[in-house]
Amino acid sequence: MSLVVVGSMAFDAIETPFGKSDKIVGGAGTYIAWCASNFTPVKQISVVGGDFPQEELDSLTARNVNLEGVQIKKNEKTFFWSGRYHLDMNSRDTLVTELNVLGDFKPEVPESFQDCEFLMLGNLAPAVQLSVIEQLKNRPKLVVLDTMNFWMDVAMDDLKKLLTKVDVLVINDSEARQLSGDYSLMRSAKKILTMGPKYLVIKKGEHGALLFHNNKVFFAPALPLDEVFDPTGAGDTFAGGFIGHLAKTKDISFENMKTAIIVGSAMASYCVEKFGTERLRELTKEDIAERLNEFVQLVHFDINLV
Amino acid sequence: MSLVVVGSMAFDAIETPFGKSDKIVGGAGTYIAWCASNFTPVKQISVVGGDFPQEELDSLTARNVNLEGVQIKKNEKTFFWSGRYHLDMNSRDTLVTELNVLGDFKPEVPESFQDCEFLMLGNLAPAVQLSVIEQLKNRPKLVVLDTMNFWMDVAMDDLKKLLTKVDVLVINDSEARQLSGDYSLMRSAKKILTMGPKYLVIKKGEHGALLFHNNKVFFAPALPLDEVFDPTGAGDTFAGGFIGHLAKTKDISFENMKTAIIVGSAMASYCVEKFGTERLRELTKEDIAERLNEFVQLVHFDINLV
Repeated sequence: MSLVVVGSMAFDAIETPFGKSDKIVGGAGTYIAWCASNFTPVKQISVVGGDFPQEELDSLTARNVNLEGVQIKKNEKTFFWSGRYHLDMNSRDTLVTELNVLGDFKPEVPESFQDCEFLMLGNLAPAVQLSVIEQLKNRPKLVVLDTMNFWMDVAMDDLKKLLTKVDVLVINDSEARQLSGDYSLMRSAKKILTMGPKYLVIKKGEHGALLFHNNKVFFAPALPLDEVFDPTGAGDTFAGGFIGHLAKTKDISFENMKTAIIVGSAMASYCVEKFGTERLRELTKEDIAERLNEFVQLVHFDINLV
Repeated sequence: MSLVVVGSMAFDAIETPFGKSDKIVGGAGTYIAWCASNFTPVKQISVVGGDFPQEELDSLTARNVNLEGVQIKKNEKTFFWSGRYHLDMNSRDTLVTELNVLGDFKPEVPESFQDCEFLMLGNLAPAVQLSVIEQLKNRPKLVVLDTMNFWMDVAMDDLKKLLTKVDVLVINDSEARQLSGDYSLMRSAKKILTMGPKYLVIKKGEHGALLFHNNKVFFAPALPLDEVFDPTGAGDTFAGGFIGHLAKTKDISFENMKTAIIVGSAMASYCVEKFGTERLRELTKEDIAERLNEFVQLVHFDINLV
């Protein structure tokens, strides 16, 4: 049994209404690994340049993140993204994107990763995500795909092909509308469930997340927070908590996916409290249990249906 | 024990992307009465003109809505509102407002209403709402106030005075921000809870509702719907379900208020399926139980906190 994560490892420079970060470690793969490794060992597939800090790699290794699948291109530079969030924290402007090593990333699945049962495809070009699926000799028990509107704009054909090969798609509400061409989220979900995935997670940011499967719907709230300090990586962290819980419990029933969504939401609620991965690095098992309990309190009610 | 409802009874003419209604019966008080009378008898305080249909009054009487407190001004006209919803159904333009009998409405509390234990103040001028509280010889067990941004714009002083006399305030997210002057809903809630109400319900439309009390928060989702046909009266219906459940069960604990919010959400989800009060008129006890069960399914999850 193993969880394989594919995703970018990067540098980010972030501006929010609360302040400005230095050039800090980021990337979808990094957030997913920091989060999922709370629940289960991780086998990581990614690419970095020679400028990527060795201590970051060592920290991940110490958390049971196997980096055999991470290519280190000594003479090249790590992917760099810089962005500025607007006052409402729901929208942002990209200031800089330097693809660097990510520009011609060809993931290689090490032989020791062939026992993959759970595959998390973090946000990357659909063709790159597909190449990982194609390198696996056995079909994983569960393939979860994260993607974004950018790929719908520039690589919709690749994405549609990829969708037929995954079990769970994780996108946000506007991406669901774009992918389906329908404004109603309920109708969008029905359409998307005919495009390949058997499960669809629609993230609505501060408004929570929905899980769709056949005719069933589950709703998970986001924790109401006084302040979102930095939303960067919240979606990746959500995905990391979701797949981390599923890989740990080895149970891919709809019931357990509901719990996995709560776990993802709890982890994401921690992520946004500080810049970058900072808050994720501090978390203890007790912190996680405490926040999960807050979610139970938040939505629990008794009803007498007589 | 009795539930007293104060609110407008009106004519509405509604345009949505799906069509146009005739001049139909509407008004906050009407929606609240149709909804709450599913759970408990209602004593209604309102005013209508001679043009208000007798069969509407008869239908309400048949549902155990006591109309002794409804003034009928034979030679005047009923309040009329006409509006057009935008494509997203979240915003609307008012086309016509004719206050008519509502312009100088002076509610009179009949002697037989003095047993009021639960008081629902539907959206009206704060001074009018206040006059009802002042006419009651005994303070009700629970006073619930619905209001709107319009009164914050034109009668904030009256509203602030009124707030010190109510137990539960029901407003939407933008109204909470306006009342508190704070963008963060969590901080808004904390501020508003110092202004009088001990309980605050913040409605977020399709994104559900939050209940705040001391340091506790409860979140209720809205039922994901394929289509919202007509949102008119959804907020009033929510309030009617909320107070109807509380008055029926006579239990004003935080735990029971959570259930009351689910009941309000379930009733509102029916309201929006057809024009005006049409859908509310058709509902059976079985319909209500079925929808409550959908809410249980929607949010229920198991978590093992070990």
